[in-house]
Amino acid sequence: MSARGIFDESFQQQFIELLESRRDVRSFRSDPVPDDVVAELVALTRFSPSVGYSQPWRFVRVDAQARRDAVMESFERASAAARATYAGEDAALYARLKLAGFREAPVHLAAFCDDATDTGKGLGAKTMPETRAYSTTMAIYTLWLAARARGIGMGWVSILDPGEAKRALDVPEGWRFIAYLCLGYPATYEKTPELLRAGWDRFDARSTDLIIR
Amino acid sequence: MSARGIFDESFQQQFIELLESRRDVRSFRSDPVPDDVVAELVALTRFSPSVGYSQPWRFVRVDAQARRDAVMESFERASAAARATYAGEDAALYARLKLAGFREAPVHLAAFCDDATDTGKGLGAKTMPETRAYSTTMAIYTLWLAARARGIGMGWVSILDPGEAKRALDVPEGWRFIAYLCLGYPATYEKTPELLRAGWDRFDARSTDLIIR
Repeated sequence: MSARGIFDESFQQQFIELLESRRDVRSFRSDPVPDDVVAELVALTRFSPSVGYSQPWRFVRVDAQARRDAVMESFERASAAARATYAGEDAALYARLKLAGFREAPVHLAAFCDDATDTGKGLGAKTMPETRAYSTTMAIYTLWLAARARGIGMGWVSILDPGEAKRALDVPEGWRFIAYLCLGYPATYEKTPELLRAGWDRFDARSTDLIIR
Repeated sequence: MSARGIFDESFQQQFIELLESRRDVRSFRSDPVPDDVVAELVALTRFSPSVGYSQPWRFVRVDAQARRDAVMESFERASAAARATYAGEDAALYARLKLAGFREAPVHLAAFCDDATDTGKGLGAKTMPETRAYSTTMAIYTLWLAARARGIGMGWVSILDPGEAKRALDVPEGWRFIAYLCLGYPATYEKTPELLRAGWDRFDARSTDLIIR
């Protein structure tokens, strides 16, 4: 980093490559990810932004097979219910999509938001309390990018009942379930989103068209 | 990036430096940020993760002074109300904190989530519709990190009434207000969060302690 705080061109290009190759991974190799690497990735979330410096994210490593199974069963029920809402080509395509990698992923993490934390003394969250959950989401993205830099892929599972997932993991009442995350070495390294490759949907230019007001 | 998808050690170190030096900036120099740079930063959000590839984020560049003023007034009202909830040392410290850089920041962006988008066909968002807002938050973080790599700082303002901000910016009814963002070249480059330096609160180790279940 230069004195004026600018990272060099080579870093910037590689950073864009990192953003682009950070995919939602659902197909993993079975090689284990060492525990200390997982701990290091979670430790890097200390650099994530948080509303009022509240640092509300809490990460749980889910090791017990019975707990993993309970979450997977919630996913399977929710996915079957979702599949039933599609018809025709979409229904056929949905049935072929691989939407989670529960069985192969060596590491399962769950991310929660401690909405009741005193840290940060509520600064910035009085008018928009949902910014605590947003902070947790950015911590997850920090972990996702840092994992990918080391060749580790992550998949975010949101097709499940958050209440069921929370009960399966036995966490404090005040915590809000944000995400269930499967991590491991990807079966393949891709730059194109899987749902784009599968023909589920296309790039939406409204996401990058800057509106002027 | 190597064949096995791993970024080299030098990149990884610089990436951690980027995470660490990405601060919530509230003090800006007045130098303009070129419009094409802002557009490029927003364009990079296309690499952000989104639930079911829904890409629900919408960025608005707020140029009209009357609109900026309306948002700033909402901030000032919300901040005065928040200040009144603190007592003693916290109240004195709150009054000294600089919580936004509306006046100096050359670029103002607002980020919204299009909860009504058809893109992605609702995949992954049926059980957890809030994941669309989470996706938008990650797009904001992409922009934040990419800006910082170029020496541009950003501050996220959440102390305001989201309804007032939305009305001031005249956006479609179905959009959800997520964040008001001030961008510009930082007055100083820091690695320590401003609220930590100011003594508002401390590092909370619960955010990086991995819980095992």
